[in-house]
Amino acid sequence: MLETNKLHSHNSHPHRVVIIGGGFGGLYAAKALGRAPVQVTLVDKRNFHLFQPLLYQVATGGLSPGDIASPLRAVLSRNKNTHVLAAEVVDLEPEQHKVILVDGELSYDSLIIATGVSHHYFGHDEWAPLAPGLKTIEDATEIRRRVLLAFEAAEREPDPEKRRAWLTFVIVGGGPTGVELAGALAELAHKTLKNDFRTIDPTQTKVLLVEGVERVLPPYPAELSAKAEQSLTRLGVTVQTKTVVTDIQDGVITLRRGEAEPEQLDTHTILWAAGMKASPLGQILAQRTGVALDRAGRVIVEPDLTVAGQPNIFVIGDLANFSHQGEKPLPGVAQVAMQQGEYAAKLIQRRLKGETLPPFHYQDRGSLAVIGRNAAVAALGSLKFGGFPAWFIWVFIHILYLIEFDNRVMVMFQWAWNYFTRKRGARLITGQNSFQLIKKE
Amino acid sequence: MLETNKLHSHNSHPHRVVIIGGGFGGLYAAKALGRAPVQVTLVDKRNFHLFQPLLYQVATGGLSPGDIASPLRAVLSRNKNTHVLAAEVVDLEPEQHKVILVDGELSYDSLIIATGVSHHYFGHDEWAPLAPGLKTIEDATEIRRRVLLAFEAAEREPDPEKRRAWLTFVIVGGGPTGVELAGALAELAHKTLKNDFRTIDPTQTKVLLVEGVERVLPPYPAELSAKAEQSLTRLGVTVQTKTVVTDIQDGVITLRRGEAEPEQLDTHTILWAAGMKASPLGQILAQRTGVALDRAGRVIVEPDLTVAGQPNIFVIGDLANFSHQGEKPLPGVAQVAMQQGEYAAKLIQRRLKGETLPPFHYQDRGSLAVIGRNAAVAALGSLKFGGFPAWFIWVFIHILYLIEFDNRVMVMFQWAWNYFTRKRGARLITGQNSFQLIKKE
Repeated sequence: MLETNKLHSHNSHPHRVVIIGGGFGGLYAAKALGRAPVQVTLVDKRNFHLFQPLLYQVATGGLSPGDIASPLRAVLSRNKNTHVLAAEVVDLEPEQHKVILVDGELSYDSLIIATGVSHHYFGHDEWAPLAPGLKTIEDATEIRRRVLLAFEAAEREPDPEKRRAWLTFVIVGGGPTGVELAGALAELAHKTLKNDFRTIDPTQTKVLLVEGVERVLPPYPAELSAKAEQSLTRLGVTVQTKTVVTDIQDGVITLRRGEAEPEQLDTHTILWAAGMKASPLGQILAQRTGVALDRAGRVIVEPDLTVAGQPNIFVIGDLANFSHQGEKPLPGVAQVAMQQGEYAAKLIQRRLKGETLPPFHYQDRGSLAVIGRNAAVAALGSLKFGGFPAWFIWVFIHILYLIEFDNRVMVMFQWAWNYFTRKRGARLITGQNSFQLIKKE
Repeated sequence: MLETNKLHSHNSHPHRVVIIGGGFGGLYAAKALGRAPVQVTLVDKRNFHLFQPLLYQVATGGLSPGDIASPLRAVLSRNKNTHVLAAEVVDLEPEQHKVILVDGELSYDSLIIATGVSHHYFGHDEWAPLAPGLKTIEDATEIRRRVLLAFEAAEREPDPEKRRAWLTFVIVGGGPTGVELAGALAELAHKTLKNDFRTIDPTQTKVLLVEGVERVLPPYPAELSAKAEQSLTRLGVTVQTKTVVTDIQDGVITLRRGEAEPEQLDTHTILWAAGMKASPLGQILAQRTGVALDRAGRVIVEPDLTVAGQPNIFVIGDLANFSHQGEKPLPGVAQVAMQQGEYAAKLIQRRLKGETLPPFHYQDRGSLAVIGRNAAVAALGSLKFGGFPAWFIWVFIHILYLIEFDNRVMVMFQWAWNYFTRKRGARLITGQNSFQLIKKE
């Protein structure tokens, strides 16, 4: 059993801030508190911060996990007031100001909850094993494994019908993740693997992007959605909007387009980039404090990001539902999480001085999505554009925001390399049962 | 069922060479046959060539898997006469000149078997889960996981005794792998992690290297073994020779030094770098052809690397026991495998012209082992030296022999970076049950 006081014994800071989650929200809160007269404990199940926006690059062999992950201890090692604790939170006790871990507990004076969201399958959790999502490093390497194994299986499949099924990839969900994944898969098949096989022609690969509403990138301005769809088509992606998944079985997906009859499509690789389910900590918080949740299970927060009736509990990032007066909630993007983390850190410090802050206000610095080499879309304020400029800004910003300097250097390097060679060096099939899919045949 | 003829239907080369295994031996054989008038099929369970000599760098967070692995298809994509087949070999039929796969078969005119060796536990296979070895990418990330989790667990352990057990690392086997692993672990603990923790002092970590005979690096000249032991001690590694493992339980290892009484040592991290067991294909080959195996199960080959009575079956690399007239068998190192792969490829081409070759002769280009930053030992011909020069040559040669150019660039880059920053960026704890060890507590 972990004793909180023991853990903090040699630490004299009075005000204890516990941060749950080392994503963009939690990490930026911790960084902002690094010089403050408080004692910070950052709790995460994982020992690293993951740069989510580039996860699709790992899933398609463009980058290695190490390129987009930074050990939390290393990132925060200079913040002497900060503990990093590798642990899993199972419950909260707001009355006692305690966080309950699998194997211990932590006391706090201020609590910041930033445990984010995961994908969900609209009540069809049985689809999960057949259509993996893209949230963790393990998700990314599993998707990479399935994609690469599909080409291997196709190379060995004499029957043309079955071969076509192996060379058919379906991405469900036309948001940024789905669009980026589809673009990268098309590039992988049509460019990177072009000369790697002898019996199949990878350029015959079908990449199908399925979106429920009438356009991809729904949260973005309509003209950008149009630009994105054009670029995807040029890359060889088939974009199918107004289409929903009605069933997924091993080797076949059923899609319904508008009011048409559902149609079956043979495929062995279905990737899930739709739906969003809040971290279970939202539920727990609601049970313990009575705070309201939205339909996705996100916590509806006050204008200062705290929980109603719990001024010392903050919820930030994807897990928070923050609505500007009546507007729709802020999108679940890194920008929002970073700004909210910094706001919570600032408010905690102000309060220690007996001061306060005006409500949180989100500074929208624009939206970006990359489709492929030289192709991206950007909305910066009133500016909306695509093509190479948008792609260049995307690359620049993503490198800029990588947490560690050495990651920035390595990724810049890898990209420059991949850009000119069209190579994707990290095309590894790893995992214990690397040949499950093929043996299944 | 895979039909060989179908697989090769569009290929007109008459002489079919099947290579089993994409390690140094198999890959260099395939490369040497790239322009030959033969039809090559390289079969491997994995889709990538692994640069084994740097695996310990992945295990200690210095490099990412992608840095030391190259997709076999990419490496061989220019060899239009070469198929890469992702498949598992389960049997051989020398009479029918066939290789039996899990899900098919291949016919050959010449067969090259290069499936290598794995570690073995001297009849104590029950030790395997408690003391993982270092042969595959999965081994490396598993070791990385255990090592990093041990520090996390120590950070959270109030009891000094138990904490010491978490900070005790035992490496069994003083060969090159054990020496390099021990050196890298000591650097990780004493340099890289120095400032990352708040309740423990990583420099208190105990790294114990256990070797059965009287000196480390037994195959090397004695003076190099002495140099290596000095460097290890300077790095903070405790070297214990003439010591054998008599038992391993969860959390405790029992060691016997010489004739002394066995002693127990509390540790949660035991890494296995001893023992060597030939790939099961050796057994199968012995059953099918009656060829003799050595005690480790390696195939005793003819002077031309073929199997007695089977002139068209070659066994090369770690799986082959090749004895210069009466001398002890060649060591299981990359150099030997590469030269044997090239020899087999050359002999096959000569035979097609009705010619032959003199027996295989190994050109020893020297031995190298790295201990840590600026510390290595080298025996090049009559030259024997250590320190920075040996280290520099080690770095140079290892970068030189990386298969793909982009790997060379990336690794050189990472190393330059790690060298100056003493950072190890790939310190990720991955895998489904990332917290198994801590929860176990």
